[in-house]
Amino acid sequence: MTSPEKPRGARTKDIAALFIIIAVTFVAPALGAFSPPGAWYASLNKPSWNPPSWIFGPVWTALYTMMAVAAWLVWRRGGGAARHRALSLYLVQLALNAAWTPIFFGLKWPGLAFAEILLLLAAIFATMLAFRTASPVATMLLVPYAAWVSFASFLNFTLWRLNS
Amino acid sequence: MTSPEKPRGARTKDIAALFIIIAVTFVAPALGAFSPPGAWYASLNKPSWNPPSWIFGPVWTALYTMMAVAAWLVWRRGGGAARHRALSLYLVQLALNAAWTPIFFGLKWPGLAFAEILLLLAAIFATMLAFRTASPVATMLLVPYAAWVSFASFLNFTLWRLNS
Repeated sequence: MTSPEKPRGARTKDIAALFIIIAVTFVAPALGAFSPPGAWYASLNKPSWNPPSWIFGPVWTALYTMMAVAAWLVWRRGGGAARHRALSLYLVQLALNAAWTPIFFGLKWPGLAFAEILLLLAAIFATMLAFRTASPVATMLLVPYAAWVSFASFLNFTLWRLNS
Repeated sequence: MTSPEKPRGARTKDIAALFIIIAVTFVAPALGAFSPPGAWYASLNKPSWNPPSWIFGPVWTALYTMMAVAAWLVWRRGGGAARHRALSLYLVQLALNAAWTPIFFGLKWPGLAFAEILLLLAAIFATMLAFRTASPVATMLLVPYAAWVSFASFLNFTLWRLNS
């Protein structure tokens, strides 16, 4: 790096912001813990390509971490209306992400969950677009998330149709 | 009270549950703190009956507290599918509640926020119905919340129409 280092105070603030953004992001899976899969999910008819249950934990941990880092990269780019808008979209998609788990596993209502996950997917794409100006890397960090939620939408749709 | 007291362990568990439910509930306003009203809201054309800004903090604090107590009353009624469904609806309405603030104040998009608050209102009514069997008092504790969100929907609609 040839650019001058940030002063110590700014670096401390950056690191504090990273931890706050990680904490805020992991609120979504923490709320999801109140709606575990359980016997109902185990009893559903599943497609042959349904991933094994153990895969969801590590995948989501990685996705939430990348998501938080992406938001942090955008946060670091300094203020302004565009950043404000981008981070607001991030919070909206996070709330939609948090809502899916109690709808699917809690209410056991795959049809409504499918409608909801399509809104989530739209919010993720809007967030990716809004992140791009501030940080193309941030948008790239959301690509695995968008891909997984696209797959999850298809899985949700299939579970709905196979069990109704 | 003529009913026998609960054993000490059960009471401790009840109190721990109350604090956990309060903590989970206040996640919604905590996330909202990232999208404060600011200059844009101050500049909006407002109806004559728009409440003064200082009223929202105390009102929401009371509403979130009553909401948490309502959920706790339902939680205390013991397990079963109906309670599970009721508390899942509670989490869904909480996520929708959390999403409104970044849509309205963050994205500054009153039209989308109005569509979203109607979904929130539907989720609140569904939660009230689901709470009734377990605890009629819990349903009553949500009446001021439903009333305020109905008013907020009307305010949101008016702010949208007055400023577009």
